[in-house]
Amino acid sequence: MFSTIREAGPSDFDAIWPIFKEIVSAGETYGFNRDTTKEEAEQLWMVLPAKTFVVQEEGEVLGTYFIKTNVAGPGSHVCNCGYMVASSARGRGLATRMCEHSQQIAEELGYKAMQFNYVASSNSGAVRLWQKLGFEIVGRLPGAFQRPSGEYVDAFVMYKWLD
Amino acid sequence: MFSTIREAGPSDFDAIWPIFKEIVSAGETYGFNRDTTKEEAEQLWMVLPAKTFVVQEEGEVLGTYFIKTNVAGPGSHVCNCGYMVASSARGRGLATRMCEHSQQIAEELGYKAMQFNYVASSNSGAVRLWQKLGFEIVGRLPGAFQRPSGEYVDAFVMYKWLD
Repeated sequence: MFSTIREAGPSDFDAIWPIFKEIVSAGETYGFNRDTTKEEAEQLWMVLPAKTFVVQEEGEVLGTYFIKTNVAGPGSHVCNCGYMVASSARGRGLATRMCEHSQQIAEELGYKAMQFNYVASSNSGAVRLWQKLGFEIVGRLPGAFQRPSGEYVDAFVMYKWLD
Repeated sequence: MFSTIREAGPSDFDAIWPIFKEIVSAGETYGFNRDTTKEEAEQLWMVLPAKTFVVQEEGEVLGTYFIKTNVAGPGSHVCNCGYMVASSARGRGLATRMCEHSQQIAEELGYKAMQFNYVASSNSGAVRLWQKLGFEIVGRLPGAFQRPSGEYVDAFVMYKWLD
């Protein structure tokens, strides 16, 4: 089956929310409160970012990402993205497709680099994937990520200068 | 003369604003737009942070800092601070005093670590000062800081686990 990526509009959030809720409530990946409400999630994922996209297949939203400026002013040439894939759609390369798509969009928007601020070192699948896509670990934040078990693990800062 | 540090209230922002404006409009240190308005500055410095403090002497505000959670959820044990000293009051150790004060406040608020996300590598005075106060460079963001001259310089991520 063929999946497409398109820009999301406000009406897409009802389909994004279950994906967001599943991932954020697990507490293993994102720097959001595990009990983030739907209204807060919409702010974080749809309103504050520059743009939000969805990947869909036969009308069903399987994943989503946002792109935004990471730091204003002297940092405004560096963007930040976040990606989420529904658990039912994992292992099919959708994160890779979204990340590659986001790099194109980033260049179209005039960004020169992309930064991930807070990648849990325990999330080894994500770390490997970003490395494969050209991101380097440029920082290690000691004990900055507390897993739901209570354990503190390091978080990585990952970075890629776009072509 | 003896300077004191106290928590700031909304009525202090009129005294903070000239310091903020001088530093941010220079574009050499903070990840804020150089033309940040007074209203935006008040949001960034007084409203979004957990707390804001001023250092004053004989009723005059000479410097200010904020403290806030750096990343929500799994990162909520790590705080972030920003410090500003009026150009007329530099070289008197006020940044050191504020940073030490902020570490005490951080512990009182239950934070376990402090992170600076975006220290321009060209701001060598600040880098040295934070190192002297126990912060380590844990990340280097390639070309992430664009100086007003147009030059891209690296930015550091600095971090300290509090006692």
